[in-house]
Amino acid sequence: MPVQDDKDLDMNQKGLTFPDGQTQNVPYIHKIGVPPKPDLLKEFKTTVKETFFPDDPLRSFKDQPKSRKIILSLQAIFPILEWGRSYNIKKFRGDLIAGLTIASLCIPQDIGYSKLAYLKPQYGLYSSFVPPLVYAFMGSSRDIAIGPVAVVSLLLGTLVRSEFNPVTEPDEYLRLIFTATFFTGITQATLGILRLGFLIDFLSHAAVVGFMAGAAITIALQQLKGFLGISTKNFTKETDVISVMKSIFKSAHHGWNWQTIVIGASFLAFLLVAKYIGKKNKKLFWVPAIAPLTSVILSTFFVYITHANNEGVAIVGKIDKRINPPSLDKIYFSGDNLLKGFRIGIEAGMIALTEAVAIGRTFASMKDYQVDGNKEMVALGTMNVVGSMTSCYVATGSFSRSAVNYMAGCQTAVSNIVMSIVVLLTVKFLTPLFEYTPNAILSSIIISAVIGLIDIDAAISIWKIDKFDFVACLGAFLGVVFISVEKGLLIAVAISFAKILLQVTRPRTSVLGKIPMTSVYRNIGQYPEANKIPGVLIVRVDSAVYFSNSNYVKERILRWLTEEEDDLKATYQPRIQFLMVDLSPVTDIDTSGIHAFEELYRSLRKRDVQLVLANPGQQVLDKLYAAGFLDLIGENKIFLTVADAVHTCLPKLNHEV
Amino acid sequence: MPVQDDKDLDMNQKGLTFPDGQTQNVPYIHKIGVPPKPDLLKEFKTTVKETFFPDDPLRSFKDQPKSRKIILSLQAIFPILEWGRSYNIKKFRGDLIAGLTIASLCIPQDIGYSKLAYLKPQYGLYSSFVPPLVYAFMGSSRDIAIGPVAVVSLLLGTLVRSEFNPVTEPDEYLRLIFTATFFTGITQATLGILRLGFLIDFLSHAAVVGFMAGAAITIALQQLKGFLGISTKNFTKETDVISVMKSIFKSAHHGWNWQTIVIGASFLAFLLVAKYIGKKNKKLFWVPAIAPLTSVILSTFFVYITHANNEGVAIVGKIDKRINPPSLDKIYFSGDNLLKGFRIGIEAGMIALTEAVAIGRTFASMKDYQVDGNKEMVALGTMNVVGSMTSCYVATGSFSRSAVNYMAGCQTAVSNIVMSIVVLLTVKFLTPLFEYTPNAILSSIIISAVIGLIDIDAAISIWKIDKFDFVACLGAFLGVVFISVEKGLLIAVAISFAKILLQVTRPRTSVLGKIPMTSVYRNIGQYPEANKIPGVLIVRVDSAVYFSNSNYVKERILRWLTEEEDDLKATYQPRIQFLMVDLSPVTDIDTSGIHAFEELYRSLRKRDVQLVLANPGQQVLDKLYAAGFLDLIGENKIFLTVADAVHTCLPKLNHEV
Repeated sequence: MPVQDDKDLDMNQKGLTFPDGQTQNVPYIHKIGVPPKPDLLKEFKTTVKETFFPDDPLRSFKDQPKSRKIILSLQAIFPILEWGRSYNIKKFRGDLIAGLTIASLCIPQDIGYSKLAYLKPQYGLYSSFVPPLVYAFMGSSRDIAIGPVAVVSLLLGTLVRSEFNPVTEPDEYLRLIFTATFFTGITQATLGILRLGFLIDFLSHAAVVGFMAGAAITIALQQLKGFLGISTKNFTKETDVISVMKSIFKSAHHGWNWQTIVIGASFLAFLLVAKYIGKKNKKLFWVPAIAPLTSVILSTFFVYITHANNEGVAIVGKIDKRINPPSLDKIYFSGDNLLKGFRIGIEAGMIALTEAVAIGRTFASMKDYQVDGNKEMVALGTMNVVGSMTSCYVATGSFSRSAVNYMAGCQTAVSNIVMSIVVLLTVKFLTPLFEYTPNAILSSIIISAVIGLIDIDAAISIWKIDKFDFVACLGAFLGVVFISVEKGLLIAVAISFAKILLQVTRPRTSVLGKIPMTSVYRNIGQYPEANKIPGVLIVRVDSAVYFSNSNYVKERILRWLTEEEDDLKATYQPRIQFLMVDLSPVTDIDTSGIHAFEELYRSLRKRDVQLVLANPGQQVLDKLYAAGFLDLIGENKIFLTVADAVHTCLPKLNHEV
Repeated sequence: MPVQDDKDLDMNQKGLTFPDGQTQNVPYIHKIGVPPKPDLLKEFKTTVKETFFPDDPLRSFKDQPKSRKIILSLQAIFPILEWGRSYNIKKFRGDLIAGLTIASLCIPQDIGYSKLAYLKPQYGLYSSFVPPLVYAFMGSSRDIAIGPVAVVSLLLGTLVRSEFNPVTEPDEYLRLIFTATFFTGITQATLGILRLGFLIDFLSHAAVVGFMAGAAITIALQQLKGFLGISTKNFTKETDVISVMKSIFKSAHHGWNWQTIVIGASFLAFLLVAKYIGKKNKKLFWVPAIAPLTSVILSTFFVYITHANNEGVAIVGKIDKRINPPSLDKIYFSGDNLLKGFRIGIEAGMIALTEAVAIGRTFASMKDYQVDGNKEMVALGTMNVVGSMTSCYVATGSFSRSAVNYMAGCQTAVSNIVMSIVVLLTVKFLTPLFEYTPNAILSSIIISAVIGLIDIDAAISIWKIDKFDFVACLGAFLGVVFISVEKGLLIAVAISFAKILLQVTRPRTSVLGKIPMTSVYRNIGQYPEANKIPGVLIVRVDSAVYFSNSNYVKERILRWLTEEEDDLKATYQPRIQFLMVDLSPVTDIDTSGIHAFEELYRSLRKRDVQLVLANPGQQVLDKLYAAGFLDLIGENKIFLTVADAVHTCLPKLNHEV
């Protein structure tokens, strides 16, 4: 941008008349030199570093003695070694309260979620014992609450059930669950170790919102089974809304149990009221947190004294009192089932990761600490691998419990340790108490929990901000609700990618004009006060120019020129003599892009229009130079800014019409 | 960019001391208003229009009477109605010479290429009769020469041969060829009608260079069979270099025929010399053009008088004299074979399109006329559909013949009509002459033709310009040579896409400084003379901020800040109080991106750093406003330029260290 005073600017603005004296008032034009030859190896290193190590994980290791490096490495793997040193009794008080609160919430949820995965209740409890312990030592989030979650339980159950029937083939079913859990862990840890954590970013926020809402509806529909007292064998295996509704109406005549419905409905109302209270008054967050356990205790007591289980009210039944039996020998390490477990594990692993990482990031940004995505994946992966060997199924971070954990004042991952000890004691001593717990109450607890996953505000805000994102969100939601959990996810990812490709295939271009009283050139569509410069057309290209758009960009620029010339002809104004392309947003160019510019240059020469480039980035300048394009158009046709280019070109205009 | 004089600028440049008088010299700061609510329907229309109708095809139809519209529509479908009206004898002279020249080139090539597709010679000739005629009426390129080409013949032959054996199942083989040709045409026409022509842009220039070179090597290797006189049954079905070389060496002891080798080698030398002469002296372009026919005539005469065919020299044999028998009844319209033909047709159609469109564009830009990609696809598709019903296989534009056509001075598509008439006469009257033509000569002709597809200069220039493009080029080349034609193509497309995704996942960010003597802010990596402003960190993000990179962008910006603050602390300089993000290259943002900026804002507030945005585009501004982000950070934190932002913020700096 040239140095200039108001007078000069005003003259330029009037535009059509150029005082002869202008050349005496030459503005300072900053020269753009030919860039030095780029260092290939260095560039490659930078690319690799920014792709896989954007967080510069070895920063703290620099210039440290060897012994310190060993300690730092251990601390990197086990963050507890770092924060544990400054742990004190005050922090423990916070963690203890938070741990007890989430334990009371997780116990009934665990029993319900294990039913969602077609597993016996103890497996849910097991999964709230071992994985949180492992995570506490390796994880870097201070607020996440680890354990089984509704969406992953549903997904895992659906996928494994399409291979084995949990009723007729319980052993194979259980073995495949552990195999899938094992590979979930392997997938997560591998992504973390290979630093491919960024892959989960490909699930966009909008897609996740739609997916979660769809999954919540699906889960709630599944709960109607327990809620209405319909037996499993009369119920469809599909999860889409149409099959489920058909099943429900078909069983209406003989399958519904009114006692079950009364129990389920009254406690659902209780839970929802508790939730509402917690929402209205943040200080009463503990009301919804302990409401589920309260309902379990009350309803169990009620069934026990009324013998309602003899009236057709389904109950949980006896729960195994053993603590996490080893299950390494149950994992399929060969054959077809290995492959099945592998495939299911990858899918469940990605969804579980998305949930855990989203939670980790949310709370980290609220308390302003850093969660290292890749390290986090290693922690989550390790905990699931260990879990798969100790009779656990896939555990991850739970939205609802993490929120309660945060509000209850947790300070560190110690709250997870507290919770896991409480769960351990429950398994050991309290399971007989759950024998008479009605299934309907578990359904009510799950329904009231998953309602929180439907984030209508987020959907509205997505609609307001970005329509294309809303399409991805809606696609995921409808896909999950009407087809299946897997397909919904696929649809969401496909729509998200299509958006990126569309942007790269059809980038925006705009004509620039000069903003009055400044020497700034901006899109005349965005700033209607901007003025065009007579004889000069300034076009900005809003994207890297790649093979996928190079041809479009060239033709679009030529079309701007044709349209402009038609307009000028119609109003008898001087023709365009300079076409300036503002390359500020052009972050990169490839060989196809350079070919397109060469063709553009040739077409313009035929029309007697000069091509001028403004503000090419380093990358672009390097490549234009390497391709010999600068020699073709002349190095004096490249400027630091559009304003420089206009200042240099204006005096050269021929004043013929 | 504020209006200012040199003195003011110099003071700012010294940077560390701010004269108290500065506020009196307030620069003009252009206000950025809140954008009006975007019109959803209009925006949607614009997106659709730019995606599918970037060339504004209905422009000429605007404000025309109905009768004129009908004529324009007909002219749009049959461009011959437009250019035919100004056709004259002078143009015809050019077309006649060009047509005769390409006919003499295409006849021997057709016979050779049909062998490449495991078809009898007449099918090659047929394909040089009907498709060029159809194209002449519907195509918009004036220079393209239509007919069978080497790469498509190889691809089609390889794909169909994996379904049927051309020797033992000749009927099924031929029928599948016609079916594939039919669907090639349907694919091409559909892409054109649905205006999806941009899909072929996804094959990048670099990938095409690599693919063509690989295909040329593969074809040349295949020709060694004819060249050395090895019989087909001793030869491998695979096309990769390792299998072919093994086959050749295995047959060395008993399968090679020295007479064949002598004929082949001497005429190959002749053809290459002719090619060299044509290259050195552009006026002698006709030497390589007629050399193939000359070799055919000479070698045929030689074999005829010496009876070399009795010595093991394989000859073409009798050619059917019928003219294009109808073949509609041979196309599979049902069953498995329909699906096979469909799949093969899509693949062959895409490759054929890529070649034809590339040729069309190249010559159009040399003569500066427009080729409408979508219209061109409809023409190519129609010609292949018609061809499939008249015993032709896939035809497209040939690189080598189009170049000869151009140099021989063709004026319009009439040269294709001339060529097709010559081919017709040849089929009718001259085929007996080809009976004694040795196969080896056809191999020599093919080898000398495909050598032209290996463009080493292009590969070197790709290496120089863009290393990533070179990887795509090399991947395609090695894939074709070492695996198969299909896989090579797939590799090239995958690498090209990976590049786009990488750019969208890991965009560049850079720290900006002020270029001396100007008020322009640029990347201090690119312009080492640029100076940082004390107390202010200016970061530019070089990409749209989408879900795939939003998290990276946020963390990268925070890392720039951390690194800068470490440096400042080490040298006891004032800390950063303003973080300015230059959004000039940020062409779009989505909900994930806005969340990332919200998190960035919160993190900065914790560090007592103010977030300031400069130059958001319309899209970005609309969305930031819709998301309430402007209310969050304050509308006075958004500026037209970085310079405006710096001018406004500098006086507010606290001068504490």
